[in-house]
Amino acid sequence: MTRFAFTVEFDGRPFMGWQRQAHGPSVQQAIEDAIFAVTGERAIIHAAGRTDAGVHGLAMRAHAEIGKDIAPFRLMEAINARLRPDPVAILTCDVMPDDWHARFSCVGRSYIYRIANRRAPLTFDRGLMWRVIQPLDADAMHAAAQILVGLHDFTTFRSAHCQAHSPVKTLDRLAVERDGDRIAIHAAARSFLHHQVRSMVGCLAMVGMGRWSADDLRAALEAKDRAALGLNAPPDGLYFVRATYPDEAVS
Amino acid sequence: MTRFAFTVEFDGRPFMGWQRQAHGPSVQQAIEDAIFAVTGERAIIHAAGRTDAGVHGLAMRAHAEIGKDIAPFRLMEAINARLRPDPVAILTCDVMPDDWHARFSCVGRSYIYRIANRRAPLTFDRGLMWRVIQPLDADAMHAAAQILVGLHDFTTFRSAHCQAHSPVKTLDRLAVERDGDRIAIHAAARSFLHHQVRSMVGCLAMVGMGRWSADDLRAALEAKDRAALGLNAPPDGLYFVRATYPDEAVS
Repeated sequence: MTRFAFTVEFDGRPFMGWQRQAHGPSVQQAIEDAIFAVTGERAIIHAAGRTDAGVHGLAMRAHAEIGKDIAPFRLMEAINARLRPDPVAILTCDVMPDDWHARFSCVGRSYIYRIANRRAPLTFDRGLMWRVIQPLDADAMHAAAQILVGLHDFTTFRSAHCQAHSPVKTLDRLAVERDGDRIAIHAAARSFLHHQVRSMVGCLAMVGMGRWSADDLRAALEAKDRAALGLNAPPDGLYFVRATYPDEAVS
Repeated sequence: MTRFAFTVEFDGRPFMGWQRQAHGPSVQQAIEDAIFAVTGERAIIHAAGRTDAGVHGLAMRAHAEIGKDIAPFRLMEAINARLRPDPVAILTCDVMPDDWHARFSCVGRSYIYRIANRRAPLTFDRGLMWRVIQPLDADAMHAAAQILVGLHDFTTFRSAHCQAHSPVKTLDRLAVERDGDRIAIHAAARSFLHHQVRSMVGCLAMVGMGRWSADDLRAALEAKDRAALGLNAPPDGLYFVRATYPDEAVS
């Protein structure tokens, strides 16, 4: 068996999420079905992270064990051909050592959350950004975001369905940037709790609208109580952007 | 009657083009139907330019005469509400003098053409970019593009269906920029011939692939013959980006 690592881009709109589900299409199933069509093997894909329904991926990392003797480039091309018409594409494919694991070897994950801060309905970006019609103060959002950076108990920002052992995580970066009517929120950590990015973004939007002060955000964090959450942002604007591994330079 | 000017953003994928057609949906019809729903009036929309099937608009300018007494902001909001679910949005709406005409007053038009220079199939950008799998030399494309800038007979780059009186036009700008695997081609002129941007982009792609030299492009221009065209790029990557009027500062 050969261990292949993939970089995967996907538009999350038609999917119930990354992980295989009984009740609807998933990115995992789309790729596994494509691998079966190419190799005749029921390989299982392991990913750096799981994404919820409607969440997107720019460069998700994943791996699978495949018995067929095939070069990585040819495997990638064949899988991409079989993925059609699903909006999923394999961007890179490499042979990895048997102890390399897309999830367990991963030491860093980053997301971008995209907001369209405008009144007009979305056209190209429908389902691909969160439209917020109230004017947002991105500078205030960025300043408040720094309260969340560092080692904290993120219980307030954690879904009731979160399966992580501990709500204590170190958030390495939370940066808010405005470009015209677009706001991008960059989040990086070794790992995140379920709904953590969307919950943090929702509360930053409360700050941006002027409905919360930075102190309100600090109080929500310190409450360590899901009921203190201001707002959970919709999945539309969330993108998994990068997984980092010890043997790879961070670009 | 009041003359209202609109800035319109639209995703061209579901449309047969800007102009009203008997055989399929158009952006013009979508907006005119929305205006009828709001005002009960069968207003006619005039646009700065007409776009082909599958071509997009980031900020098309258009105008219509409306009898109903309504404030521009309320008109815009009401039209946007009625445009759903079509991927068309009114970004701005202003009252203009009766002699202001979206098409005839327009003194400058600009387009962007977007290429995804990669092997992997498109996901988010399917129908929104032209995927070219052969590596393109963007610097060579930009250098060759300068041959087309200026006053020329653009017969080679003109559709057989073009209705313009003369094939002689002044091209003000044709610039090729690469950002990672994305290439953007910026074109600006007072006006363009039918298919001119797509025809120029197609020939620049020939240069970028190394199949044409800059001299081949010059020969195609000087041939003044549609048969000398190298390649007509697909509509997917073409965006109308800006119309300029004498009374408006160029941003």
